[in-house]
Amino acid sequence: MNGAQSLVRTLVDAGVEVCFANPGTSEMHFVASLEKVPQMRCVLGLFEGVVTGAADGYYRMAGKPASTLLHLGPGLGNGLANLHNAKKARSGIVNIVGEHATHHLQHDAPLTTDIEAIARPMSDWVRTSKDALTVAADGAAAVAAASGRPGKIATLIMPADAAWTEARGPAAPQAPNPPPKVGESPIAAAVTALRKGRAALLLGGEGTRAGALEVAGRIAAATDCAVLTEYAVARVERGAGRVEAVRLPYGVAEAVALLKQFQTLVLVGTKAPVAFFAYPNMPSLLADPACDIVELAGPEDDITGALDELAKSLGAQALAPRGVAALSRPGLPTGPLTPEGIAAVLCHLMPVNAIVVDEAVSRGRGFGKLTSTAAPHDWLTTVGGAIGFGLPAGVGAAIAAPDRPVVVLEGDGSAMYTLQSLWTMARESLDVKILVFANRSYQILRGELMRVGADARGAAAQEMLSLERPTLDWLAFARAQGLGASRADTLESLAAEFRKALATPGPYLVEVVL
Amino acid sequence: MNGAQSLVRTLVDAGVEVCFANPGTSEMHFVASLEKVPQMRCVLGLFEGVVTGAADGYYRMAGKPASTLLHLGPGLGNGLANLHNAKKARSGIVNIVGEHATHHLQHDAPLTTDIEAIARPMSDWVRTSKDALTVAADGAAAVAAASGRPGKIATLIMPADAAWTEARGPAAPQAPNPPPKVGESPIAAAVTALRKGRAALLLGGEGTRAGALEVAGRIAAATDCAVLTEYAVARVERGAGRVEAVRLPYGVAEAVALLKQFQTLVLVGTKAPVAFFAYPNMPSLLADPACDIVELAGPEDDITGALDELAKSLGAQALAPRGVAALSRPGLPTGPLTPEGIAAVLCHLMPVNAIVVDEAVSRGRGFGKLTSTAAPHDWLTTVGGAIGFGLPAGVGAAIAAPDRPVVVLEGDGSAMYTLQSLWTMARESLDVKILVFANRSYQILRGELMRVGADARGAAAQEMLSLERPTLDWLAFARAQGLGASRADTLESLAAEFRKALATPGPYLVEVVL
Repeated sequence: MNGAQSLVRTLVDAGVEVCFANPGTSEMHFVASLEKVPQMRCVLGLFEGVVTGAADGYYRMAGKPASTLLHLGPGLGNGLANLHNAKKARSGIVNIVGEHATHHLQHDAPLTTDIEAIARPMSDWVRTSKDALTVAADGAAAVAAASGRPGKIATLIMPADAAWTEARGPAAPQAPNPPPKVGESPIAAAVTALRKGRAALLLGGEGTRAGALEVAGRIAAATDCAVLTEYAVARVERGAGRVEAVRLPYGVAEAVALLKQFQTLVLVGTKAPVAFFAYPNMPSLLADPACDIVELAGPEDDITGALDELAKSLGAQALAPRGVAALSRPGLPTGPLTPEGIAAVLCHLMPVNAIVVDEAVSRGRGFGKLTSTAAPHDWLTTVGGAIGFGLPAGVGAAIAAPDRPVVVLEGDGSAMYTLQSLWTMARESLDVKILVFANRSYQILRGELMRVGADARGAAAQEMLSLERPTLDWLAFARAQGLGASRADTLESLAAEFRKALATPGPYLVEVVL
Repeated sequence: MNGAQSLVRTLVDAGVEVCFANPGTSEMHFVASLEKVPQMRCVLGLFEGVVTGAADGYYRMAGKPASTLLHLGPGLGNGLANLHNAKKARSGIVNIVGEHATHHLQHDAPLTTDIEAIARPMSDWVRTSKDALTVAADGAAAVAAASGRPGKIATLIMPADAAWTEARGPAAPQAPNPPPKVGESPIAAAVTALRKGRAALLLGGEGTRAGALEVAGRIAAATDCAVLTEYAVARVERGAGRVEAVRLPYGVAEAVALLKQFQTLVLVGTKAPVAFFAYPNMPSLLADPACDIVELAGPEDDITGALDELAKSLGAQALAPRGVAALSRPGLPTGPLTPEGIAAVLCHLMPVNAIVVDEAVSRGRGFGKLTSTAAPHDWLTTVGGAIGFGLPAGVGAAIAAPDRPVVVLEGDGSAMYTLQSLWTMARESLDVKILVFANRSYQILRGELMRVGADARGAAAQEMLSLERPTLDWLAFARAQGLGASRADTLESLAAEFRKALATPGPYLVEVVL
């Protein structure tokens, strides 16, 4: 058994069952090992951003890390943007990055780079294996690092000779560190704050799952507090039967206005809310300066444990949770494609247990609010803000949850960054339905230009925000990669095409022409 | 005038006329400045790898840097692979990377990253502007750093408040450092080595341009030496009328066999040749251990000056150069698409003064040799080995040399990494003709699997190298982005479609189905 085989077996023994891969020469022994370790499902992506984004989506639904397989420094470079998103979402990923054979490095071959330096900004854990005898143990340590609660980005660099040299065998799995339990004093502070009134729970991390939201709903019933979530959340379990939380708005003015009504904000698995971007004469911190911020649990703490303890201290355990959404489907609207109309179509047709991946950053901004009474579903958003998250995350979510339909809401500008994802969806016959909202511009930047106070009414600047000349043809992009696709330009055709998409096995794309 | 305007004006004053851009919120003031500084041509790319690869291709043809405009750490991350290629090719690029406003950084907003750390592995020069009063001078320093001979990657990080705050005005251009002249002793050593016989000049950098090759040809006439180039060369001027140099082969065994015949290797603008990858039981260094290596000029030295001095010392200045290629077009072949047949079609139809960008890494490996008697042209190859170079470099080359036809030879696997380039070609009506060699696999890795000695005859491993299921449809990819396209599956249809491509204004794609 060579080093590569010892590593693959170690990963599998530690529970890593999927490898999203875009390999090159230095990873060929890892690829060859797949034959001998059939428990590892290897999924090919034709660009590394697909690979890392898929691993993020996978973690959010599976709750455990997948591995990636990347080719040297440049391959890792191509995967960094979605590793950034995964890191900010606290998803666990085990990156395996190939490296030249150790004796080859001194010669500065064309593909030689400082892989550790490239990895570090987007990794919580980085290690280069010394040789074939250590690579298995390094793999076990990487899985343990990635698998803690919350998840971490672990990057293991595997020199080619560590892969191809004879090894001893796989290493035993290591137990990840459990998250620290929250002590009595933050719980007591939260109790006091909530009893004072005009308070809100602000939830992040695992605090936005159905069980935690239900506990938050009981606390709301006991104390009359509001239940909010961060703007950027890795995974919210929502829809009929779930406690509905109010998502903080993206707009600074809107977020400030919402938060102004509270005298206390109790943080549960998150930190004090911050504006996505700075704007001249706007605050960076969104809470009112007079607002009391009480941290019940930080993002690294045992979030659900803290919520349970808080509910217990408030005597809220047996109360009926407040704010449970009842199933309510709006009628199917007709006419032009308004945001409200699109949201109504989504709400009406939402499949039970759907996984919605939302990267419709301009058109989709109001969709969440208007779909809260749909059939129960999960809602995944980009947390790091790096564009190109949606389609790859759809790949990973579908592989993690093969029995659940995935719906990707994607802007046309965003879709272009990682459009190679469509091919992997087709190859793996993934049940992913994609709505591409084709406004044919970087629409979000039109608003941002105004907000930062830049004067860009002129043609040259506007040209930088327009995706017209030529028009991107999403039906052709889908056909090029083996997907069925159709177009919608009214609410009635959107309903018809989305219905058709849901009834079609495998991936399907609807271009929504705005 | 705000900081962004002062920076744009500084860039233009220093001779930077093109900005390849994929902007976001933090770069909106830079975008707005375009209105006021019309001398800057801004070219939009829909993915950052397009942007950085275009800047590489631009430098190789224009001989001066373009700027890029990238959005924060993740945007830079997406551009790293082609920055790696540019750095290894010693292309000069001025990256402008937006950053959060300085007062916003402390709050760790979703898109906050350590941009300097992300930039450093692929940059020669990195600086973050302190404020609006310094950003112009920083820009002048960045252009000077990028513009030396050879070129450098300069990355300037521009906080949003440095862009939007009032500034003093543009900064004066700074003169780049000239390359160090080579002293007498390396020249004397080269003279001695060449006079001993069985010697070769190995050329890199500017040593592969027509003028330098002519001098090398005179030296060959005087000393009977061979004239070689590195395998990975940024730009070779070749074809009829140019001194033909032998390109080192990619394969280690082939390169070792070629170099075995020389007792001395004189390095001119390059270093001792190294294998692209290490393989078990194969050497990393390609020259025979008994071969004498004499460095006339390193990659950072005044390469053409050194060659001129060498020719003078050898009394070769007035000799007729040896090895000048005469125009010789093979007849147009017919039948199945063999590598030799494809090369013959290329050689026959090569337009005068074409720029060939070669990323046909498996099928195209022999094209160079078989096209040396074509009409004069430039040949650009990936130097860093990061895949996804070809199409973006075609964009940049076409913008640098609008009066010259660009021919991109591209593998289907490679094309997928940066296929968004097609849209920019269509939008800018660039005269780029693309031949996509569709072998529907990572064909190069099939050979590499064998060479590294990995046993991967099984289905699971082979599946990782196959791009079938589904087949990528390049006509659809072209149509999706506004390009004309057609398909060739025989040598006669290749000739017909390539002819049609050359006669069609603007970009055109031919899918060559192997």
